[in-house]
Order: sequence, then C-alpha cells, then structure tokens
Amino acid sequence: MTDALSELDFGDDGLVPVVAQDVDSDEVLMLAYANDEAVERTVETGRAHYYSRSRDELWEKGATSGHTQAVDSVRLDCDGDALLYRVTQEGGACHTGYRSCFYRTVEGETVGERVFDPDDVYE
Amino acid sequence: MTDALSELDFGDDGLVPVVAQDVDSDEVLMLAYANDEAVERTVETGRAHYYSRSRDELWEKGATSGHTQAVDSVRLDCDGDALLYRVTQEGGACHTGYRSCFYRTVEGETVGERVFDPDDVYE
Repeated sequence: MTDALSELDFGDDGLVPVVAQDVDSDEVLMLAYANDEAVERTVETGRAHYYSRSRDELWEKGATSGHTQAVDSVRLDCDGDALLYRVTQEGGACHTGYRSCFYRTVEGETVGERVFDPDDVYE
Repeated sequence: MTDALSELDFGDDGLVPVVAQDVDSDEVLMLAYANDEAVERTVETGRAHYYSRSRDELWEKGATSGHTQAVDSVRLDCDGDALLYRVTQEGGACHTGYRSCFYRTVEGETVGERVFDPDDVYE
C-alpha cells in the first residue's frame, strides 16, 4: 500500500464507490464499489477489480464477458472515500450492451451508444 | 417525477451516489450523494443539489462558496442506483481549491489543477 492508498476510508461496509472513466474519450463508464482487496489487486495487476454487493464477492471486470478495463491510473478524492479508475475499456462497460452504464437521461432519452448485443456475451 | 426518475433505487439509506462531470472538459469533478428531494430540486432548478451525509441535510452546491454547478443534464445508470450530473462548474468543485476532488493518484502524485485558495472562500 502506498501512502495515499492508506488514506482510503472504506466506511462501515468496507467499500468505497469507484467511478470508471474512459481514459481516451473521458466518458464516465460506470459506478461500482471496491473493498481494500479489490483496490490492491487493481493497483497490482493494472486490471480493474471491484466488489460485487449483490454477489458478495471480489470481481474482475470482464473476466466473464471479455469486456475488461486496463487501468491507466487510480485517483482518490480529497477525503479518500471515493476512487476514480481511468481505464481503457474493451467493448462496453454496461451489461446491457451500452458503452457506458449512464446511457439515458432522467427524461428517458437514450444518449449512449450500444456497442454489443448482451445475448451474444452473457448466457 | 418522470418515468426514468421513478426507477431510481435510493437504497436502504435513501441515497444514491452522484458523479459530477464537467460538461465542457468531461473532467470528473466529485462524487457526492443525493436523496429524492435533492434529485427533484436539481431537475427543477437546474442547479446541482446533494445530500450531505456528514451534516445530514440537503445541500445546494456553491450556496456558500459561490462555486455552483449549473446542470446541463442528469443521467441515471442501467440499474438506477447511481446518477451522473453533467455540469458547468463555477470555480472549483473541491473545497481544497482544486478544480476536481480527484486531484491525486494513489501513488501520491498531484494531477489536478488548483483554481482557488480555500482560505479566501471558506471562513
């Protein structure tokens, strides 16, 4: 662990929210969560790891789908309770097939780009 | 409330994480939280509102500092448990004086730009 990593505040549930951002386009791709092990593995391997709250397990992004995230850098925020992964996204970040999980507005307008058919990726 | 807003999942604590992104530069500025009232006020007024977990109150960004966020659009993610505010940021988003709260890497390198002196803004 580096000095800045030791400042991370994982909160009562042991998790910090992580924003994944495309390092080339700067598009915000997704928001997920990480525990300390997920952050360590991300820093060590250069591949984005998260912690799945629904499955209650460590999760390497793209391990099943092939839609991996190569991590260019990991930033933390001022008070150390949020992270930003700057990544090169393979395929799409969203399980629905969109490049970004934030593909629609609250008015219901679709603004994102669909880049794969989820039926071809997830069985 | 619009149809998409009604899909929001505020979780057990009544909050969703919100990513604020600069609509011009696409820089990720901060991560904060919103309750239903904060989202409604944001959509109604076009000014970014959040819910402060530490102060336990609704919070209009920049109401004290002048560093407001004019909201261009509000996006929600695929499963409705995170929001993206696309904003025009006045001054800096971070109380430390940086443009973005994500101004440093986990290796301890400063990558962000300082745009104001917090001593001039907060008393």
